[in-house]
Amino acid sequence: MRNFSRGPQHLAINQATTKGWSLEQAIEGYARHGVRGIAVWRDKLAELGLTRAASMLKAHDMTVTGLCRAGVLPPPDNAGWPAAAIGARCVIMVAGGLAPGSKDLAGAHSAARDGLAELLPHARAAKIALAIEPLHPMYAADRACVNTLAHANDLCDALGEGIGVAVDVYHTWWDPNLEREIARAGKRRLLAFHVCDWLVPTTDLLFDRGMPGDGVIDIPKIRGWMEAAGYDGFAEVEVFSANNWWRRPPDEVVRICIERHRTVV
Amino acid sequence: MRNFSRGPQHLAINQATTKGWSLEQAIEGYARHGVRGIAVWRDKLAELGLTRAASMLKAHDMTVTGLCRAGVLPPPDNAGWPAAAIGARCVIMVAGGLAPGSKDLAGAHSAARDGLAELLPHARAAKIALAIEPLHPMYAADRACVNTLAHANDLCDALGEGIGVAVDVYHTWWDPNLEREIARAGKRRLLAFHVCDWLVPTTDLLFDRGMPGDGVIDIPKIRGWMEAAGYDGFAEVEVFSANNWWRRPPDEVVRICIERHRTVV
Repeated sequence: MRNFSRGPQHLAINQATTKGWSLEQAIEGYARHGVRGIAVWRDKLAELGLTRAASMLKAHDMTVTGLCRAGVLPPPDNAGWPAAAIGARCVIMVAGGLAPGSKDLAGAHSAARDGLAELLPHARAAKIALAIEPLHPMYAADRACVNTLAHANDLCDALGEGIGVAVDVYHTWWDPNLEREIARAGKRRLLAFHVCDWLVPTTDLLFDRGMPGDGVIDIPKIRGWMEAAGYDGFAEVEVFSANNWWRRPPDEVVRICIERHRTVV
Repeated sequence: MRNFSRGPQHLAINQATTKGWSLEQAIEGYARHGVRGIAVWRDKLAELGLTRAASMLKAHDMTVTGLCRAGVLPPPDNAGWPAAAIGARCVIMVAGGLAPGSKDLAGAHSAARDGLAELLPHARAAKIALAIEPLHPMYAADRACVNTLAHANDLCDALGEGIGVAVDVYHTWWDPNLEREIARAGKRRLLAFHVCDWLVPTTDLLFDRGMPGDGVIDIPKIRGWMEAAGYDGFAEVEVFSANNWWRRPPDEVVRICIERHRTVV
């Protein structure tokens, strides 16, 4: 397993972790602390502008670990491929939940599969990898009906080349099949690795994620499974935290991300 | 599939749904409305006393669909077998989460299996069926590390006779393998069927369950899978709802349970 204690060379930060910063501030801020990976959100990217963002990322030698997030719909010509312009390693795909007013979970599963199948040829043509991110089952109704890595792997099996998975410990840590499914995904499909922590108690379903080390997830164990399967990319800290981390100065948050990356990831 | 529209003959109510009532009030209240099944909680049972509870349940011809809840520990001689005294169809077993301060999920899985294995011979001797209830993955850390019906079925495979499962739609509805795993469990292992609903949004991880019909779960579809597998027991309404149902008069709650049982379960 790679030794992370020496420094942040394998650390990426998802810019949602430093919510107070614009994309410009995040690129400069992360670079100032020696962080070389960033996950970018589409709204922040649009705010800065594609050309300026691409140029700033290049100037700071920053790897874009992912572009967040694309739903399975709307169709590809509306979405465009800003991911290519900023060199993102993948586009994070969230499957979508139940249709409004619907209780048809099987229908949602089909819609996710069909939407990905429609998108994939365009992504392949643009040389952009799609990463299905299974979300925690507590988001099945309203955000994503793909809730296990097994399901995401099944979709990859069905859809063929050009699509892989993003493994987020927050969404998947509880799964007794996680080690097996990470091995099944294998190096080619393991496109991203997101870390934060599950707090006990968790007081909000959306915005109460913990900083790595503050919860109950054995992150190094899961990283070991990822690396045993061949993953050699960044570990991306992604913390949504309305009442704690989002209230702190972003520079402090970055410092703590670096410290935790060295010690508990 | 059985026709529930005629009346409450297959309806049970988990007494936690009418939190304001003692066990005595719940037995009398449910019977007054024609409800013939009840799930009993141990603290409420202790309050009323075993002898008096058994006699009241008998006088009202009330079936006890389950005794809630037993953890895997403490050992059986502390727990006693009040379930036998009140004729409960099963004891609901919740696997327990991580040990305090631990991040060892695999260890928690082993502890659950070993605890059940230790308990099972005592349960068999007392002719009490144990029902493993997989809880939603959002409870993996602090309540139960068995979070899928597949995992519960694996435990049943490993442990042999005398142990089955309780299927609660709230905990399992999101699972793409639910139909398959209900079929796998089969009539012999399907010991209880709990219904409530998943609200969108859900504002609390513990106490914001919905009354059947108020959320997104296709309850009749899941009941159909249960019955196709041979389940012919009660459908037990179990709603934990701090800000809605627990604030209403229990008689009103029972009336609405009956109405929803006829129309949306």
